[in-house]
Amino acid sequence: MDLVIKGGKVITASDTYKADIGVRDGKIVMIADKIEEPAKRVVDATGKYVFPGMIDSHVHFELPFQGAVSGDDFATGTRAAACGGVTTVIDFAIQAKGEDILETVKKRMASADPKTYIDYSLHVAPTDVNKDVLAAIPELIKMGLPSFKLFMTYRKEGLISEDGDLFMVLREARKYNAIVGVHAENAYVLERLIEQFAGEGKTQCIYHALSRPNFVEAECISRGIKWAEEAGSRFYVFHVSTKEGAWEIAAARAKGLPVFGETCPSYLFFTEEKYKGENGPLYVLTPPLRTALDQEVLWRSIQMGTLQVVSTDHCPFQKAEKMRGKDDFRNTPNGLPCVETTLMLLHNDGVLKGRFDLQHLVAVLSYNPSVIFGMYPRKGTIAIGSDADLVVFDPEKEFTMSAAALHMNVDYSPFEGKRIKGMPVVTISRGDVIYENGEFKAEPGRGKFVKRYLPEALTTSPEPAVV
Amino acid sequence: MDLVIKGGKVITASDTYKADIGVRDGKIVMIADKIEEPAKRVVDATGKYVFPGMIDSHVHFELPFQGAVSGDDFATGTRAAACGGVTTVIDFAIQAKGEDILETVKKRMASADPKTYIDYSLHVAPTDVNKDVLAAIPELIKMGLPSFKLFMTYRKEGLISEDGDLFMVLREARKYNAIVGVHAENAYVLERLIEQFAGEGKTQCIYHALSRPNFVEAECISRGIKWAEEAGSRFYVFHVSTKEGAWEIAAARAKGLPVFGETCPSYLFFTEEKYKGENGPLYVLTPPLRTALDQEVLWRSIQMGTLQVVSTDHCPFQKAEKMRGKDDFRNTPNGLPCVETTLMLLHNDGVLKGRFDLQHLVAVLSYNPSVIFGMYPRKGTIAIGSDADLVVFDPEKEFTMSAAALHMNVDYSPFEGKRIKGMPVVTISRGDVIYENGEFKAEPGRGKFVKRYLPEALTTSPEPAVV
Amino acid sequence: MDLVIKGGKVITASDTYKADIGVRDGKIVMIADKIEEPAKRVVDATGKYVFPGMIDSHVHFELPFQGAVSGDDFATGTRAAACGGVTTVIDFAIQAKGEDILETVKKRMASADPKTYIDYSLHVAPTDVNKDVLAAIPELIKMGLPSFKLFMTYRKEGLISEDGDLFMVLREARKYNAIVGVHAENAYVLERLIEQFAGEGKTQCIYHALSRPNFVEAECISRGIKWAEEAGSRFYVFHVSTKEGAWEIAAARAKGLPVFGETCPSYLFFTEEKYKGENGPLYVLTPPLRTALDQEVLWRSIQMGTLQVVSTDHCPFQKAEKMRGKDDFRNTPNGLPCVETTLMLLHNDGVLKGRFDLQHLVAVLSYNPSVIFGMYPRKGTIAIGSDADLVVFDPEKEFTMSAAALHMNVDYSPFEGKRIKGMPVVTISRGDVIYENGEFKAEPGRGKFVKRYLPEALTTSPEPAVV
Amino acid sequence: MDLVIKGGKVITASDTYKADIGVRDGKIVMIADKIEEPAKRVVDATGKYVFPGMIDSHVHFELPFQGAVSGDDFATGTRAAACGGVTTVIDFAIQAKGEDILETVKKRMASADPKTYIDYSLHVAPTDVNKDVLAAIPELIKMGLPSFKLFMTYRKEGLISEDGDLFMVLREARKYNAIVGVHAENAYVLERLIEQFAGEGKTQCIYHALSRPNFVEAECISRGIKWAEEAGSRFYVFHVSTKEGAWEIAAARAKGLPVFGETCPSYLFFTEEKYKGENGPLYVLTPPLRTALDQEVLWRSIQMGTLQVVSTDHCPFQKAEKMRGKDDFRNTPNGLPCVETTLMLLHNDGVLKGRFDLQHLVAVLSYNPSVIFGMYPRKGTIAIGSDADLVVFDPEKEFTMSAAALHMNVDYSPFEGKRIKGMPVVTISRGDVIYENGEFKAEPGRGKFVKRYLPEALTTSPEPAVV
Repeated sequence: MDLVIKGGKVITASDTYKADIGVRDGKIVMIADKIEEPAKRVVDATGKYVFPGMIDSHVHFELPFQGAVSGDDFATGTRAAACGGVTTVIDFAIQAKGEDILETVKKRMASADPKTYIDYSLHVAPTDVNKDVLAAIPELIKMGLPSFKLFMTYRKEGLISEDGDLFMVLREARKYNAIVGVHAENAYVLERLIEQFAGEGKTQCIYHALSRPNFVEAECISRGIKWAEEAGSRFYVFHVSTKEGAWEIAAARAKGLPVFGETCPSYLFFTEEKYKGENGPLYVLTPPLRTALDQEVLWRSIQMGTLQVVSTDHCPFQKAEKMRGKDDFRNTPNGLPCVETTLMLLHNDGVLKGRFDLQHLVAVLSYNPSVIFGMYPRKGTIAIGSDADLVVFDPEKEFTMSAAALHMNVDYSPFEGKRIKGMPVVTISRGDVIYENGEFKAEPGRGKFVKRYLPEALTTSPEPAVV
Repeated sequence: MDLVIKGGKVITASDTYKADIGVRDGKIVMIADKIEEPAKRVVDATGKYVFPGMIDSHVHFELPFQGAVSGDDFATGTRAAACGGVTTVIDFAIQAKGEDILETVKKRMASADPKTYIDYSLHVAPTDVNKDVLAAIPELIKMGLPSFKLFMTYRKEGLISEDGDLFMVLREARKYNAIVGVHAENAYVLERLIEQFAGEGKTQCIYHALSRPNFVEAECISRGIKWAEEAGSRFYVFHVSTKEGAWEIAAARAKGLPVFGETCPSYLFFTEEKYKGENGPLYVLTPPLRTALDQEVLWRSIQMGTLQVVSTDHCPFQKAEKMRGKDDFRNTPNGLPCVETTLMLLHNDGVLKGRFDLQHLVAVLSYNPSVIFGMYPRKGTIAIGSDADLVVFDPEKEFTMSAAALHMNVDYSPFEGKRIKGMPVVTISRGDVIYENGEFKAEPGRGKFVKRYLPEALTTSPEPAVV
Repeated sequence: MDLVIKGGKVITASDTYKADIGVRDGKIVMIADKIEEPAKRVVDATGKYVFPGMIDSHVHFELPFQGAVSGDDFATGTRAAACGGVTTVIDFAIQAKGEDILETVKKRMASADPKTYIDYSLHVAPTDVNKDVLAAIPELIKMGLPSFKLFMTYRKEGLISEDGDLFMVLREARKYNAIVGVHAENAYVLERLIEQFAGEGKTQCIYHALSRPNFVEAECISRGIKWAEEAGSRFYVFHVSTKEGAWEIAAARAKGLPVFGETCPSYLFFTEEKYKGENGPLYVLTPPLRTALDQEVLWRSIQMGTLQVVSTDHCPFQKAEKMRGKDDFRNTPNGLPCVETTLMLLHNDGVLKGRFDLQHLVAVLSYNPSVIFGMYPRKGTIAIGSDADLVVFDPEKEFTMSAAALHMNVDYSPFEGKRIKGMPVVTISRGDVIYENGEFKAEPGRGKFVKRYLPEALTTSPEPAVV
Repeated sequence: MDLVIKGGKVITASDTYKADIGVRDGKIVMIADKIEEPAKRVVDATGKYVFPGMIDSHVHFELPFQGAVSGDDFATGTRAAACGGVTTVIDFAIQAKGEDILETVKKRMASADPKTYIDYSLHVAPTDVNKDVLAAIPELIKMGLPSFKLFMTYRKEGLISEDGDLFMVLREARKYNAIVGVHAENAYVLERLIEQFAGEGKTQCIYHALSRPNFVEAECISRGIKWAEEAGSRFYVFHVSTKEGAWEIAAARAKGLPVFGETCPSYLFFTEEKYKGENGPLYVLTPPLRTALDQEVLWRSIQMGTLQVVSTDHCPFQKAEKMRGKDDFRNTPNGLPCVETTLMLLHNDGVLKGRFDLQHLVAVLSYNPSVIFGMYPRKGTIAIGSDADLVVFDPEKEFTMSAAALHMNVDYSPFEGKRIKGMPVVTISRGDVIYENGEFKAEPGRGKFVKRYLPEALTTSPEPAVV
């Protein structure tokens, strides 16, 4: 064996058991109560959990946005991710207006390839849905990119897809079993509300939330689902933030539609109360933070399986950049740093608070994004033949969140001072121990692009037997 | 190793991969790309699937009912089950009126223990919900029996529980995390319809279906769910037969209620057209067979996760007993033989016809009943430390259904002549090869009572990523 | 003219206008801005409203129940009714077990005929739904009795109809365009709850409410609607008391089902808080009083048209009889006196508080019960050719409720001390002024049985244009 | 009396009775079984119905649209309307881009005033929702114009209001109890579909329907309702054409929202099969014709009260203009001639076929539009003090539809050759007999602008007692 992880409690999406794990050539080759075979390298996981590495299916590295650039590039971002137990990320290839979309993808891969420490992929994000874009879809899928993201908002930023654009992409996607995700906020209504508030001098942070009320998101999710239903396509809602949004997804799923959704730690851990404090701008993102009731419904939606994925929407900006919006929220670039902290946060507030169990944690962070976005069975599970992307997680180790103690390239942490229990101590990517007890041990560029593939029927897993 | 299964494709509820499986002391101890270690016994599974043994959570052995006794006793029944890939069954302990319910259970276990070839458990079925029964619930749970069945029908047979009875059982069950299942058909309405038809001389087989129309089941499911919702209890619907019934369950689940349901092969493979033929009585069971549309919705409900379990409701009667109802369906004892054939039927019509994949097959036949009824992680999966209850399944082997070629103690097969592809070739129970290529090799009484336990939160598995 | 009502504001279900009304031979023959023609009798209605007389479609006169007899007989009851603006009542003919139901009706009419001061009819209430009862339905309808009431509760009292009984009545009713109403409370569940509470010594008044929780009514309404839907029959829910019950009706109506409902003043004016006071027993009725939220939903359900009728469920018992239940609510006969006060209460709390307008008041108290129960166009409107059943209502006259100042034969008023504005000052029945400014001027027996008739399609009225 | 209508059967939204009607100074002043008083003019209505004149709340006179001008101007249009039993029309004041909206209204009134034969009003239709338009709303309401129409479609034609525009108008309307109606079709999706079909050479008439599938309307209605719900405003859907659209409205109403809807005769009488024939272009309108199932649901939605109004959407173009689209539906101006024929058509296919009764006919054609758009009690009923806008309708008179026999300024009839029974024989506007037995007897300009007013609570009418 190249590597044996000994004595840990193995957690997959469906099972929990104590076992040793043997790795050869970057793949898992043995799981046994005791592996006697000699190994080049042994990691002792006694008293610890062994998870499949987290798949963060929603990150924004080196993204120029609203007058700033997100703080992590593919190097710092994937390094911090690995420190937090992430072994695969999916970023975005966002088309510039008029740009050949195959070019968009190639440029983005060229940025990522020399820098990433862990494996990665991209969601393709057209912003100009013309005939060429529609014609490129089969080619993109052949390249291993069967997931698309459309913005149903950001009209002024030039990112918006109108309903007709979305519908055409869904119809093409349907032909090739691809999945289409959206940023769902009604641009036309929120712009009017911002305009009205601004006209009344209401530009303090709380108006960021008030100008994008829950119904602005819920209507948009409802609409997107309608188009997907008509097109017969898989549909994915990024960063669901509202209870009403979650309910739209629940209703669609009860009808048997292949509609999926994620939420992100910002919505699970913070409420719009943050916008009333001095540091409000540090918490500005879109969709905005909501109320405690929305938060509770989001947690329950994860528990019930209405939302299948928790991703991070990692998009950090420096404190000074964020605070530009102190007097006018419109001057703050949107986004928060989360890629490194989500696994430990979900363990602490999800598992330890009894909201779901360890298998469910693995489902939402690893297995489900792998299946939904087409990396399964290579990623997302602990099984013979799968990539040895593993995290040894110490459930007893305590940690106090702070920007200083974390590895993301951002000078503040929205969780500063939060005390949690349980954190990753070893991260293994394709059999390589790349992070161990605080030390990072890999070279940039070792991460590889993951060609993804979605079959006609998604590989399914059992229905949850949730109380 | 005591036993190694070599070269098979291992299927669990969440994963599919090629691996050898090593067994020691009746438990799975190793899963690896190649097990080199010597083994007392090797089963070659090259080119075959290795499933966790099927858990048939709904069988009726040696049941006196409607003037006959179901044809299989615990011996013939569990032997046939094993030949069909079943490694655990759950039968029922049905209280006689006035009987101490603990006594009911003990008597039933005394019947089963010396005869069973495979492991078994019992659902407790009170028919006289008085204070003593309610008081016995914690004791029953301590004995490992955390599941109850109530009949919302069979009034004349003295089995019925009225709504108040059901509600009281649900409230007690809630306290101990038990699950309560029901036979859902409105007795009062169906009796009136039978009476009316009989008064008009309409007693041919088709009137069995017409006197129990879809709404008689759907109303009853709706009502049961209401009581369960109020009591806060887990709820399970046995043998869902109608589209409307499935929709009631879907709606409850969309609200986040812990409501579960099963259907059975009779409803998936036959329609009420059978009642119009000469052999109609052979297909009489309750609820009755339905239309092709109901059938399609039931298949889709399995696919969507609305119905989590397929059990057999095995309850065979001899041809002569069934045909007593040739002129009057009321003279036919209800029930069909299915325990041996369900795994292969579901593989043939479920997997091969593209309705769901192999993992989903394992979920509905093994993993889900195990989790829902409290046998997990001992049963229902292939993982280190779990019982080595395994089935080697040859996906290429073809078979023509016939009573003669099957092992159930019944002189006809409702599937007579049906050609299927894929069947179990080896069945292993706690590491013992008890059935191999047509030969059965075990002693009665080797099967053990399985103490079951339901935790406060059911062990959950990932949400299916169904198309 | 025999009678002219001059100068009033005429209110019908659809119109409001100032006009004189001319009456000849008990019928309305002229409506005009000014009637010049000489009249034998003139009633000055200047500054007042002229309503069609209220039709109270739910009263219980001289009813032996739970060890007492309701205080008003057909004489005192209809006299008090007339004083309160009621010109027609519908009481019940409740079958004694085993009794020929045509006999039941005849006996009830024989009691009523010599005593009533105003016109009346009866709902037929079978309690023993055998073949004879089903066979009698066309005869009953021919007699002018196209409405039935079944008790889905009162099992111990021997009144209950099981689901099969209800379903058979609905199917027969369907054939003759009859309407079937129910008292909807699940007997089996409430009995268990009462038994449990009683076993714990919990027999104070508040346990009357707690043993019949909202879901006991809502489940029963839901179930009744299902049977009616299957039977294709018109369905009516008496005394809806819960928000959940109202929602069930709203959902049925949104599907286009001919489902109708009423509520009663007790539920609109009192909450279960009453049961916590010393005089709790005075407020015991079934279904019991509910919470303030239920109350608000009931008001809104009237406003929205979900509930089309307000009736009184008048069933008075003397204070001493009611107070028998001081220590054990089971000793209190159920019912409250309301027949005289409902018109003024609904005007005061409905119209004056802005919940609905005058036309809506006429709709729920006169027009709708007339149409739904088959008295239209003879009753329920002010139109040429209709019976001159009219009420002159003084919107400025104030009144303080008290048993002493009212005419019902009961020694307390649940509304004692309540100050209201607006009350009837003149009541006219078929052109006869029978009540005028506190004086009652008619002979018993002048009231007539109203033969009712329901057409295949109910005479419809416009959809409300409600805000 | 100035006028007495003798011996007719008077029909209002809630009542039917035989009576004479007396008119003085243009108002109804007497309704009686027999009016003896001498009259300047007597109309004999023996054996006939007397309806309140129809209020057609959706007509387009002299509208320049898609390269043509609708054939009827305010003179020919209102004359034809009167011949068909219409006594009031509501046309539109459609803002030109950049135009002061008060100016828009004044110009439109200037066109109408000298020409109309019957009373009229206008819906205000902003196409450029800027601050000035929002600021003008209270002024418009003061002018008697409390209803607005926004186009959620016609993007290329420059008429579209985006969601933010609609939401702002709804919020302003809410403050003044106004009502906002929409043309609901998703412009972005239908444009894409048209573009795609055109690209494939599919421009035959049937592609007009196929490029605007049901969901294009239903989504848009769903969305509009969401904004109205959030704004708290009354909402009206013009020309509902699909079953799904009707269901959206039914669902909103079941929640108690003040959402209203109309359909038009084209959708009730024709299906998309028309587009397959040679004369397809003659039937092109938007939304397009649908299937027979949609048609049936629309009829039932009228019956159930989901749709409260039937208007005509009268917008005639000459045959040659229509046939320009013979090879490409995009060249056909949208619209059909209906103002003259709708009352008789609805009587023939609604009342005579048993879909609803005469009162219901009056409700949807007269009473409901009057109440919903603020003309009540002046218009829409037969009551003392209301305008004497009356139609004498001969239920026995038969008629064969033909362009030649009708009075609209258009050279074809979509109903050519249809045989109907029952038609208006006399039309009376404010007491003037303007049409009698085929002769038209009035001067242009006699029609008056009707100042409308919507109270905080709409005047309500009783809930329909529909089977």
